[in-house]
Amino acid sequence: MKFSTLASGLKASEIREILKLTTQPEIISFAGGLPAPEFFPIEELKKVDAEILEKEGMQAVQYGTTEGYLPLREKIAEHMKTAFGVDCSAEELMITSGSQQGLSLLSQIFLDPDDVVLVESPTYLGAINAFTLQHPRFIEVPTDEQGIIPEALEKILQEHGKAVRLMYVIPEFQNPTGITWTEERRKAFMKVVGAYDFPIIEDDPYGELRYDGEKMKALKSLDTKGQLIFLGSFSKIFMPGLRLAWMAASPEILDKAVKLKQAVDLQSSSFAQRQAYYYMKRYDINEHVRNLVQVYGKRRTLMCETMKQYFPQGVTFTYPEGGLFTWVTLPEGMDATALMPKVLAEKVAYVPGGPFYPHGGHRNHFRLNYSNMPEDRIVEGVKRLAAVLTEEMKNIK
Amino acid sequence: MKFSTLASGLKASEIREILKLTTQPEIISFAGGLPAPEFFPIEELKKVDAEILEKEGMQAVQYGTTEGYLPLREKIAEHMKTAFGVDCSAEELMITSGSQQGLSLLSQIFLDPDDVVLVESPTYLGAINAFTLQHPRFIEVPTDEQGIIPEALEKILQEHGKAVRLMYVIPEFQNPTGITWTEERRKAFMKVVGAYDFPIIEDDPYGELRYDGEKMKALKSLDTKGQLIFLGSFSKIFMPGLRLAWMAASPEILDKAVKLKQAVDLQSSSFAQRQAYYYMKRYDINEHVRNLVQVYGKRRTLMCETMKQYFPQGVTFTYPEGGLFTWVTLPEGMDATALMPKVLAEKVAYVPGGPFYPHGGHRNHFRLNYSNMPEDRIVEGVKRLAAVLTEEMKNIK
Repeated sequence: MKFSTLASGLKASEIREILKLTTQPEIISFAGGLPAPEFFPIEELKKVDAEILEKEGMQAVQYGTTEGYLPLREKIAEHMKTAFGVDCSAEELMITSGSQQGLSLLSQIFLDPDDVVLVESPTYLGAINAFTLQHPRFIEVPTDEQGIIPEALEKILQEHGKAVRLMYVIPEFQNPTGITWTEERRKAFMKVVGAYDFPIIEDDPYGELRYDGEKMKALKSLDTKGQLIFLGSFSKIFMPGLRLAWMAASPEILDKAVKLKQAVDLQSSSFAQRQAYYYMKRYDINEHVRNLVQVYGKRRTLMCETMKQYFPQGVTFTYPEGGLFTWVTLPEGMDATALMPKVLAEKVAYVPGGPFYPHGGHRNHFRLNYSNMPEDRIVEGVKRLAAVLTEEMKNIK
Repeated sequence: MKFSTLASGLKASEIREILKLTTQPEIISFAGGLPAPEFFPIEELKKVDAEILEKEGMQAVQYGTTEGYLPLREKIAEHMKTAFGVDCSAEELMITSGSQQGLSLLSQIFLDPDDVVLVESPTYLGAINAFTLQHPRFIEVPTDEQGIIPEALEKILQEHGKAVRLMYVIPEFQNPTGITWTEERRKAFMKVVGAYDFPIIEDDPYGELRYDGEKMKALKSLDTKGQLIFLGSFSKIFMPGLRLAWMAASPEILDKAVKLKQAVDLQSSSFAQRQAYYYMKRYDINEHVRNLVQVYGKRRTLMCETMKQYFPQGVTFTYPEGGLFTWVTLPEGMDATALMPKVLAEKVAYVPGGPFYPHGGHRNHFRLNYSNMPEDRIVEGVKRLAAVLTEEMKNIK
């Protein structure tokens, strides 16, 4: 039995393998990107499910269109305006089975082997996994605490511009760093890429979860020529287990993505799409998001304050204005992957930073999630982590 | 903006485009492969949903594993034994978002450009769409009213055996022909392919919907070396809109498919998986299937009898023992695609036969579905179709 070239290169996502380890309830896991389950609107969902089955039971579980349930796409179009400052119609939107599917579809319609894909350095490892299947060349664009560095991008484009087929960015509360691009950087970025015509994926699953600072408009709201593809998701603002997300893109791109989705899974769940639609019709999803912001914002602050208090000198971390993650940097030469067994022995888990760089290296980082653990476990987990780090830093001196 | 090679070759599935035309309620549609919505167990689903949210609301909408919800996979393992005669454990099963996803995953893990994939002639066009994305060479294996012809297959393998990377078959109530392989053919088939080691996909979404004749065991039950990959689905026996299906395969294959699924959509819906599991736990799905068999069997008989009575001489059709489709053959030289406008003008729809052949041709066939229309519309639709055919056959003489 002979597998394809693609299959020979498949490896399990390190993050999923770590997540498996961390499902034991005694582990204080800062590893995943899981929402807090205790705030899922379960009671509301009960009413929503009953209403769906009462009003349109048959259609709700029958085959539907590949583009997605039209009333949901209309609701999302409204939401795009209020939550992200983006004008788009239901016709410019399609439903995907999570944003991971959006990434997978887009990588397939844009990338051939050896094509160049630009990503922030570091970037979301699920995106790296999706892109890798097409065997592209990754070029990492340097970033700092204000986001992507336009001058660095410009230099890369001068050299490789013609070979670039796709770019992928997370301007808001980036995964893994938690960093948000400043307004200046956004404008400069749009100016630089505007001279080219490669498509840019703006992945924004966390944008609505802002705890401090002023709300910013999506890059796509600055896009006048259909270059930006926006990926939004219900996973963090509603429920991830329904596997519902959306893609807003130009008609030409959407047409290809829809045709590809026909071949890969026909359509996303008719029922799940109605769960999101009826929920948004009956309840105020923004009110629900405001509640999450309260809870997660507190957890963010608590985690950062505890790290500040207990982490040894020489270890730094980002203070995110929103989203789910903070990014910890150890002194050069330390290795967060090698440290995992010691950390897990203390019943704590994080995701080592290396896999967030397509070319590897940078092993002195790790990513912490603060949305999934209650406050007492955040404090306890950070303390345990601090103890391991302190001990380790003694050894390396 | 430059698209990939894959994207340049994308075209909309003809069947989905036809289905769009046929959603107007005045059309008598024999075109889709839709179950009868009036028999979906909606009242049961209400109870099931309430129970899920009551008992495990949080987990039911949280992220889950890529392989799928273990209790559902255990239920499916039992079902594989009773419904298909196949011994397999939960570990040998993964959940997919419809069997279309199974086909998409398998085509990606087995096919590189120019590899040979063997299919029945004709075959399911959703499979052709999934495979085509990998740019393989299709070889059509001749079939007759008893199924695939082992001697023809053997001859093809003698010539091309080394280049074959995958084979795809539907031995039970085939789509589009409605034909079931005889037991002799199954045994002969297994003997022929047993001399090779390419994997074989056995797609069986309709196997439980048998109206006459004796139940047959799946090919996979005869497989001693892990060559067969079985695709089963909840779409026809439960509800298609939940997008739930399963794949049973050897550990080596399943491992690749799970890793690929991580990159393409992380997992299938946690909630939908529980809908199927709780339904199977609380109710007897075989009892539900028996009810469907009653209804669909009657519709099958009625459609075939009406065709027999009204179709002009020279037009033949299959009499399926189960499943959803019958296959109509017009005299050579007639063109079912060209006839579509006249048929649609009479507010009737079918799927023309051409697209079911990867190399085209064979335009004198069309596929009729009998599961989705009530009995009076079946009779009326067949009569209208008969009138168009009778008129057309006058013209060509």
